[in-house]
Amino acid sequence: MLKIPPHQVAGHQAGNGKLGPLVDESGRFYKPLQGDERGSNELKFYTSFSSNSRIPEHISKFFPTFYGTQLIEASDGSGLKPHLVLEDLSVGRVNPSIVDIKMGSRTWAPEASEEYIQKCLKKDRETSSLPLGFRLSGIQIYGNRESGYWKPERTSMQNLPAEEVKLILKKFVSSNTSTDMDLQPDCAFAATVYGGSTGILSQLLEMKAWFEDQMMYHFYSCSILIMFEKGLALEGQNPGGQIKLIDFAHVIEGRGVIDHNFLGGLCSLIKFISEILTAPNEHKSLVSSVNGVN
Amino acid sequence: MLKIPPHQVAGHQAGNGKLGPLVDESGRFYKPLQGDERGSNELKFYTSFSSNSRIPEHISKFFPTFYGTQLIEASDGSGLKPHLVLEDLSVGRVNPSIVDIKMGSRTWAPEASEEYIQKCLKKDRETSSLPLGFRLSGIQIYGNRESGYWKPERTSMQNLPAEEVKLILKKFVSSNTSTDMDLQPDCAFAATVYGGSTGILSQLLEMKAWFEDQMMYHFYSCSILIMFEKGLALEGQNPGGQIKLIDFAHVIEGRGVIDHNFLGGLCSLIKFISEILTAPNEHKSLVSSVNGVN
Repeated sequence: MLKIPPHQVAGHQAGNGKLGPLVDESGRFYKPLQGDERGSNELKFYTSFSSNSRIPEHISKFFPTFYGTQLIEASDGSGLKPHLVLEDLSVGRVNPSIVDIKMGSRTWAPEASEEYIQKCLKKDRETSSLPLGFRLSGIQIYGNRESGYWKPERTSMQNLPAEEVKLILKKFVSSNTSTDMDLQPDCAFAATVYGGSTGILSQLLEMKAWFEDQMMYHFYSCSILIMFEKGLALEGQNPGGQIKLIDFAHVIEGRGVIDHNFLGGLCSLIKFISEILTAPNEHKSLVSSVNGVN
Repeated sequence: MLKIPPHQVAGHQAGNGKLGPLVDESGRFYKPLQGDERGSNELKFYTSFSSNSRIPEHISKFFPTFYGTQLIEASDGSGLKPHLVLEDLSVGRVNPSIVDIKMGSRTWAPEASEEYIQKCLKKDRETSSLPLGFRLSGIQIYGNRESGYWKPERTSMQNLPAEEVKLILKKFVSSNTSTDMDLQPDCAFAATVYGGSTGILSQLLEMKAWFEDQMMYHFYSCSILIMFEKGLALEGQNPGGQIKLIDFAHVIEGRGVIDHNFLGGLCSLIKFISEILTAPNEHKSLVSSVNGVN
């Protein structure tokens, strides 16, 4: 029984007769193999990566498990089509808060076609990719049973200035996001989601150490997903904060150089998260002191 | 008594009636203030940086000391012109080996003019900036009293692939560079120049830690100079390996974001230097084992 993934926040989406990924009940995610180079390139990456003995386990856990390819009925009704069979990353999650962050100030590889380069360059310049080294590609923030999810229009997230990106990353780990989005986020779950020895920051730093060293792959235009369960955080339990890397249609070989483009964006993201952890109420206390409360 | 700097390896150079920097005997370096935005921007940077109390001393030492501006006779005979007065970085050096490395895979700031952006982007794509995150802008390697300096054509250094850049960075710290440039470099001084607690790698890592944190400036199109005295190394003395940052005509404000573009290139450079330290004879032993020597 295939269905449309309930928690996809970016990328092509199935539904309304469109082609997009599907999930089954056994925890597998079926991603249509794009007909052009992108499809064959992503398959090439998964095939190489999943059999690469030089990937340490503490790094491979950041990637979806790859189960090969399979012909299944495409979501757009166009018949049997080849799909990548991957781990469904939302398995076991009830009401996940998810943000999709497209990494790198440059989303194109040097050897891409001129047309593709110009298209990407234009988008990188129009969005926050160029100034920030990454852009928010999509987000859903769980509020509570009544409010459900806050899931803003994807394009509205892509070109925010630094201060607003920081605000979104604060809202992402706040308890007061559902009722009034103009409220200063309280960052109630910053310490438990972003912080701690197994939190998001630790995971990003683990990934950074690998990127400072590995010269096997350059990950153009791929995304980091950050996920956690606000429900668990509200109950005082470990919210299961987790990062995953996805979307490998533009991965190329490293050729004796580290992926400085991805790494630069990763360091920038790490700085945002670190600052939120260090001064979660920075803006609030500024307001308070202006009001004479402090 | 102003004269042409004897050890300049990149940038505009005085001589033959051209406009370029001059030095005096008291250790000052006079850089003509470029007439356009670049001149005023570089002056703005030096003025801001030299009075910025948030720059720790272990970082400010990587920058030339700034002594203000002065009207002096320009090197091209065009009369009195305003010059930046800076520390002459070659003071006290006898036969310095120097490499000038232009940092960042992108040498243009987002707000530059469209014409300038297109010019830089073209050059970044044609050189090793895009793939490597930096490009070699100029180099001089001291051989010995007889051979003098190896100082290849600057443009020949800018678009080398990773393996050749690595070879140049090996030659830079080798004793056998002067006689036969086709010889595998012996990396005789790698440990004393690149390695050690005060060596080049340590300095680069110190700089990296600052770039992971600082959000004051973004250093587009600036260079890292690496310098040392081979003569001292040959005598078994400390070769005085030193890095300096120069050329700030395209520095802009950080606006709440780290300089991920410079940082990415810096991490890439650090990886090259680390690899040379870890496996200085990598290529040689490969050759040896092919020849059955090992």
